[in-house]
Amino acid sequence: MAQPPPLAQPDTPTDRTESFSDGVFAVAITLLVLDLSVHNVPSGGLAQALGHKWPHYVTFAVSFLTIGIIWSNHHSMFERIVRVDRTLVLLNLVLLMTVTFIPFPTGLLASYLRSGADEHVAAAVYAGSLLLMSIAFIATNTYAARRELLGEWITPEIARQQLLRASFGLFVYSAAVGLAFVDTVTSLVLCAVSAVYYALPARV
Amino acid sequence: MAQPPPLAQPDTPTDRTESFSDGVFAVAITLLVLDLSVHNVPSGGLAQALGHKWPHYVTFAVSFLTIGIIWSNHHSMFERIVRVDRTLVLLNLVLLMTVTFIPFPTGLLASYLRSGADEHVAAAVYAGSLLLMSIAFIATNTYAARRELLGEWITPEIARQQLLRASFGLFVYSAAVGLAFVDTVTSLVLCAVSAVYYALPARV
Amino acid sequence: MAQPPPLAQPDTPTDRTESFSDGVFAVAITLLVLDLSVHNVPSGGLAQALGHKWPHYVTFAVSFLTIGIIWSNHHSMFERIVRVDRTLVLLNLVLLMTVTFIPFPTGLLASYLRSGADEHVAAAVYAGSLLLMSIAFIATNTYAARRELLGEWITPEIARQQLLRASFGLFVYSAAVGLAFVDTVTSLVLCAVSAVYYALPARV
Amino acid sequence: MAQPPPLAQPDTPTDRTESFSDGVFAVAITLLVLDLSVHNVPSGGLAQALGHKWPHYVTFAVSFLTIGIIWSNHHSMFERIVRVDRTLVLLNLVLLMTVTFIPFPTGLLASYLRSGADEHVAAAVYAGSLLLMSIAFIATNTYAARRELLGEWITPEIARQQLLRASFGLFVYSAAVGLAFVDTVTSLVLCAVSAVYYALPARV
Repeated sequence: MAQPPPLAQPDTPTDRTESFSDGVFAVAITLLVLDLSVHNVPSGGLAQALGHKWPHYVTFAVSFLTIGIIWSNHHSMFERIVRVDRTLVLLNLVLLMTVTFIPFPTGLLASYLRSGADEHVAAAVYAGSLLLMSIAFIATNTYAARRELLGEWITPEIARQQLLRASFGLFVYSAAVGLAFVDTVTSLVLCAVSAVYYALPARV
Repeated sequence: MAQPPPLAQPDTPTDRTESFSDGVFAVAITLLVLDLSVHNVPSGGLAQALGHKWPHYVTFAVSFLTIGIIWSNHHSMFERIVRVDRTLVLLNLVLLMTVTFIPFPTGLLASYLRSGADEHVAAAVYAGSLLLMSIAFIATNTYAARRELLGEWITPEIARQQLLRASFGLFVYSAAVGLAFVDTVTSLVLCAVSAVYYALPARV
Repeated sequence: MAQPPPLAQPDTPTDRTESFSDGVFAVAITLLVLDLSVHNVPSGGLAQALGHKWPHYVTFAVSFLTIGIIWSNHHSMFERIVRVDRTLVLLNLVLLMTVTFIPFPTGLLASYLRSGADEHVAAAVYAGSLLLMSIAFIATNTYAARRELLGEWITPEIARQQLLRASFGLFVYSAAVGLAFVDTVTSLVLCAVSAVYYALPARV
Repeated sequence: MAQPPPLAQPDTPTDRTESFSDGVFAVAITLLVLDLSVHNVPSGGLAQALGHKWPHYVTFAVSFLTIGIIWSNHHSMFERIVRVDRTLVLLNLVLLMTVTFIPFPTGLLASYLRSGADEHVAAAVYAGSLLLMSIAFIATNTYAARRELLGEWITPEIARQQLLRASFGLFVYSAAVGLAFVDTVTSLVLCAVSAVYYALPARV
C-alpha cells in the first residue's frame, strides 16, 4: 500500500477512460431514437405518416451501426493501448466529442433528405462530421504510438498497418464531403462503404 | 507482458461488450420516461389530464419491464458466451439497435391506444419491433453456438433448449403482429404473455 | 474451465445487476436537467424569466439529491446481497422503474407549484411516486433476507434493523400523500425529512 | 467469507461511487448535443440557418471539453481517495449535481450570445454554474483530506498542492461571474483559461 508518491501522474491504467468512453458511446447511440417521432397526424393517417418518415428509419439504422462500429474500433484501439497520459485523455475526449455530435447531423440528414438544395448541405454536414471523427481517431492512434503507450506486443509493423487502416476513412469521408454537393446518394454510399470496411476484421 | 502478437484478434473477452450493452439498455429503458408529460392543462384540470394519460403509464410500465427482461436474458446469454468475435459484436449491435428502438413504438402505442384505426397500426409497429428484437436475439444466440463461442459447460442439449426457449418469442410476436389488425388488446396480451414467459427462470 | 453445467442458474453474482442499476440511476438523475429551460423570453427579460423558474431549481436539487440518496442506499443493499436469482432481478427492475419514473412527477411539481388546486395533485403524485419506490425497496430487501441471498455476516438482527430503517419511508411517504391534499408545503417537507433520514449513516 | 459484521459501514471501497459518477458524467456530456437543432428553416436556407447557429457549436465544444476535463480531474481525485464514507458520497453527489446542471446554462449561453442585455445574464449564470462546481470540488477534496480518506502515498505536501490547484478555479470563476456584467467575451475567456489550466498535467 505504501507506494512512493507518483510524480505528475505520468501513467495511469486505461480502465476508467474506457468505462467513461463506453458510457458516452452508449448514450450517444441511444439518443438517436429521440429523432424518431410523428406529430400532427390526421385521424386514420398514422400508417401514411410513418411511411413518409422512411429517411428517419434509414438514417437511424445507418448512424446506429456507424457509432457501434466506431465503438468496436475504439475498443480494439484501447486493447492495444496499455497506458494513458493527460494528452491521450484529451485526444480521446475530442474523439468522443465528434461521436457525441453524430446524432445532430443524423437528424439533419433525416429531415432534409429528398428536399432539394438543402439535401446537399445536410449530406455534407453528415460526411463532414464523420471526417472530423476520423481525424480525431487517427490523432489518438498516432499519439499513442509515438509516445509508446501501446502494449509491448504491438510491433512497429502492426502499428503502421493500424494507421493505414485508420487512414482509409480519412480519404473516403473527404471524398464524401466533396461529392455531397454533386450527388447526395453517392456521398452517403461512400459513408456506408467506410462503415462496412471498418466492420470487417483487421487482417493484422 | 511480452505476449506474442495476436493475429487478427480472433477472440476477445466479453467484458467491454457487456458493459457497453449494459449502458445501452440502461439509457433505452430510462428514455421511456420522456414520453410521460402533460401539456396545455386548463387550470384545475391536472388530475383529469393525468387520468386521460393512463395508456402512457401502462405502456411505460410494460415497456420498462419488457426491456428489463430482455436485459436479464441478454445477461444470461453472455454468461454462456465466453468469447466474442467481430461478427458476434455486429450481431449484438443489431440486437441493441432493436432494443434502443423500443421507446419509439412505445410512444406510438401510448398516443394511439383508443384512437380507432390508428390503434391497429401502432400495435402492429409495437409487436413488429419486438419481433425484430426476437429475430436478432436468436441470430446472436445461434451464431455463438455455431462458432463455439460458448463456455465448455454448455452441452449441445443445453444450447438446443436455449434456442427453443428463444424461439418462443418468434412465434408469439409473429402472431401478435397479425392479430394487431384484428384486435389490439389480444395482440398486446400476447406481447405481455411473452414477457412473463421470459421472466420465468429457464428450466435448463 | 470445465465446470459442471449449472442447473437452472439458481445463483449468479451481483456484478452485472449492479452495473446495470448504476447506469439506470445515472441516466434518471441526469434527465432531471432536461426539465430546466426557458422559452419565449421577451428581449431583456431573461433575468426575470429565470427568477420565475425558481420552483424548477428547487425541485431539480431536491429530486437530484433524493435519487442520489436512493442510489446510495441501493448500493448499501447490494453490499449485503451476495447472490441474485430471477425474482430478485425482477424486484430490482420494479424498483428501478419507480426510480426512473421520478423525473416525471418532479417536472409536474415544478410546473404546478404555486398554481392553486393543481399544486395539491402534483404534490400527491410526487409523494406517491416516492411511496411506490419505498414499497419496491422494502420488497427487494425482504425477499433477499427471506431467500438467504445476503452475506453470511448479516445476522438476523442486522437484517431486522435494515428492514425497520427501510420501513421509515413507507410511513413518512404515506403521510406525505395524504397531507398533499391539505398542505403542499408540509407534504414536501416530509419528503425532504425522509431524504435527510436516509442520508444519515445507518447505526447498524 | 464469514467476516465480522461491519459496524455502521464506516469505510467502503470507491468502485461503485466511481462507476456511478462515470455514468453521470457520460450522460451529462452527451446531453449537450440535444441543444443543437434547427427549426422552421425556409426552403434552401439550411446552410444559412446552420451558420446562424455558430454560438451553439462553440458552446457545445467548450462545455463538452469543460465537462470532460472536470471528469478527468474527478478521476484523478478518486485515484487519491481510497475510502469513502456517507459524507463523501453526499459531497460527491452535490458535485455531480453541479456537473449535471451545466447543459442548462450552456443552452442559455448559446441562445443569448449576441442578444444585448440578456447576454450578460446568460454569461453570469454560466460562470456561476462553474463556480458552484468549483466550490463542490474543493469541498469534496478538503473533506477527503481531513478525514484521512486519501491513500497513504499522499503526503500533506501533495494534498496541500492539490488544494491550491483546485482553488485556482474558485478565483477565476468568481472573477468571471463579476466580469460577465461588464464584458461577456472576457468572462468566457476566463472560463476557457480555467479549462486549459486544468487540462494541463499537475506538477505534483
